[in-house]
Amino acid sequence: MNISNPIKEVGHFKPPTRILCGPGPGNAHPRVHAALSLPQLGHMDPDFLNICEDVKKLMRYVWQTNSEFTIPVSGTGSAAWEAVIANMTRPGDVFLCCVNGYFGERQCDMASRYKADVKRIDAPWGEVFTHKQIEDALTKYKPKMMWMCYAETSTGARQPLEGIGDLCVKHNTLFILDTVTAIGGIELELDKLGVNACYAGGQKCLSCPPGISLLMMDDKAIEKSKDWSKNNEKVPNWYLDMSMIRNYLVQKDKAPRAYHHTAPISMVYALREALTIIADEGLENVWKRHTQTAEYFWGLIEEAGFEMLIPNKENRLTSLHTIKVPEGVNATEAIKYIREKFNMEIGSGLGSLNGKVFRVGLMGYNSRADMALLVTAALKAACAEQNWKPKNK
Amino acid sequence: MNISNPIKEVGHFKPPTRILCGPGPGNAHPRVHAALSLPQLGHMDPDFLNICEDVKKLMRYVWQTNSEFTIPVSGTGSAAWEAVIANMTRPGDVFLCCVNGYFGERQCDMASRYKADVKRIDAPWGEVFTHKQIEDALTKYKPKMMWMCYAETSTGARQPLEGIGDLCVKHNTLFILDTVTAIGGIELELDKLGVNACYAGGQKCLSCPPGISLLMMDDKAIEKSKDWSKNNEKVPNWYLDMSMIRNYLVQKDKAPRAYHHTAPISMVYALREALTIIADEGLENVWKRHTQTAEYFWGLIEEAGFEMLIPNKENRLTSLHTIKVPEGVNATEAIKYIREKFNMEIGSGLGSLNGKVFRVGLMGYNSRADMALLVTAALKAACAEQNWKPKNK
Repeated sequence: MNISNPIKEVGHFKPPTRILCGPGPGNAHPRVHAALSLPQLGHMDPDFLNICEDVKKLMRYVWQTNSEFTIPVSGTGSAAWEAVIANMTRPGDVFLCCVNGYFGERQCDMASRYKADVKRIDAPWGEVFTHKQIEDALTKYKPKMMWMCYAETSTGARQPLEGIGDLCVKHNTLFILDTVTAIGGIELELDKLGVNACYAGGQKCLSCPPGISLLMMDDKAIEKSKDWSKNNEKVPNWYLDMSMIRNYLVQKDKAPRAYHHTAPISMVYALREALTIIADEGLENVWKRHTQTAEYFWGLIEEAGFEMLIPNKENRLTSLHTIKVPEGVNATEAIKYIREKFNMEIGSGLGSLNGKVFRVGLMGYNSRADMALLVTAALKAACAEQNWKPKNK
Repeated sequence: MNISNPIKEVGHFKPPTRILCGPGPGNAHPRVHAALSLPQLGHMDPDFLNICEDVKKLMRYVWQTNSEFTIPVSGTGSAAWEAVIANMTRPGDVFLCCVNGYFGERQCDMASRYKADVKRIDAPWGEVFTHKQIEDALTKYKPKMMWMCYAETSTGARQPLEGIGDLCVKHNTLFILDTVTAIGGIELELDKLGVNACYAGGQKCLSCPPGISLLMMDDKAIEKSKDWSKNNEKVPNWYLDMSMIRNYLVQKDKAPRAYHHTAPISMVYALREALTIIADEGLENVWKRHTQTAEYFWGLIEEAGFEMLIPNKENRLTSLHTIKVPEGVNATEAIKYIREKFNMEIGSGLGSLNGKVFRVGLMGYNSRADMALLVTAALKAACAEQNWKPKNK
């Protein structure tokens, strides 16, 4: 053997703990950690498949959808996202992407890899789209699909969704929604909104560690994905081919479940517990708690002399908060100070907001008054360390 | 809200436990379960990135490779597999696939989705390829890449690998190896064998739950993957685009790490601990233990009147064992009996071996004399339940 044993060099595993108040992951709920550590079953075990059925039921509740194909995906949020795009996009499809942040850019990238004819409309980062902008674009481009982000994690903006599903129906466009930083935290009813396909990650308001994601495709979305087989072609992505996953996760007429890949058993356990915790609290109570924590936090932050990026409260997420970096403060240094001094993670800005905002997640288990207090105090201390003095104080 | 709370219907989470002696997942090591349940860090936390560096060092040891790009992939084994194929295959590339089991068929499927010109050679399921067969195919097809499976989980066959890397060099072909059911269990030294790209899952001999996988691409494999950027194109798979993952997981000249997707933190913890357990025992000791357990098991099985699918011991895996289903025994019933009576999972045959073999995994933590005894006793009891009587008894 040529490669020597590195055990002395790497030592044993002793990760530090951290308070996770960045854009995600947030701290997982202790009950979720306990579920993660349970002994696994096999991925074809009838008892495991029953657990998946429970997960699907709980997902339908948390997303408020009756769609049968509401399933856990074996990867982080981006995997469920790509599953939607890979299965639904045929080369040449006109695909309208509404870009008002980092993740809109990613959507354009992803759709172009599946050879969509990508059309985009843009809003400044931190702002949201109006009905008129959307309808104009639908009229102009006649897209087969439209992608929109409900909760832009890069900006903290919350896109109003009322009536957008109706616009899509009117223009014969399928409505694809990113709900990563909203699910289980911010009011969201997929069927009522007319969403045809949707995805999310577990590591935000669901208080689950990253490593599993959630996907919904309604009957119209599935029908669209069948264009592949109708043309005697296969989805150009084996791992995320939902036609095969359907034979594993959705049983039809008591046909035996077909093996596709080995599911991430422990992460499914974690998701089961995370969704159960939400069902225990009740979805509407969870939404209310996020709103209350957010409003309390905004008050504290403004009282401390900081300014929120998004002036209009209606357009702010109640899970992820963007706070302007005060003039004269170096964001990287402040974030480092908070990590080293208080053992706490808060996020920096992405893309064009790099250095300009702090991103604070108060999501799921961390959506609590004590966390709001603690983060505010830490931000004040870190900026004071750089000799920042709030105005009017 | 239209969808009512399902908590009463699904109840709380109480999964059964199971002895996992099927083709995988095997039972994870208790230390791995403990690591899984630790509080997570964020995916951009410098301490987490240090943990990834430790994981990479431990992976290089367990695979015996010096290749820098030896990384954990955020999905189950099939995701790391597809990462290799998606990044290295350009449309029209001649890709030789050596098919002697279920997973060879999957390889042909996967490569064809990336528009490879798939050529295949076949050996009967349970048999292995000779040097002559391989060299003839390399001469005939002049492939850019050749895929081979070291440990065919569907048949229990172990492909001899000595000299195959040299054949590939001679024919200017890149050598891609599946090591899913071998890594951390069966003798394997990637650099010595001349493997250019390789992948594995965590849930076999590494005693880690499924949900994370391992990938190695050497300099030649990475150079091949750069054909995409050289042609001003992108890898047709966003989630598994290794050019972006390199900017996250491999630091060059102290450039800052670039966010790509949220890594599955807890699964990385699990993998860190699983690899550490192997380094603690010592790789050669781990290989020896698997051989000893396997030879003990084969002796017990034959003594009990069963017959192994693969007659030649040299060609058998020491991690995954295929036992012929005795005449008159219904495999599905026997497997169900073992699950219900002994709370133990063993596997059925895949594809053309369905109903014809039992698949028994004694992998990693489960590669132990007590497990060998227990599985043999359970198999005997299950077959006796169907009135099977061993010959010569």
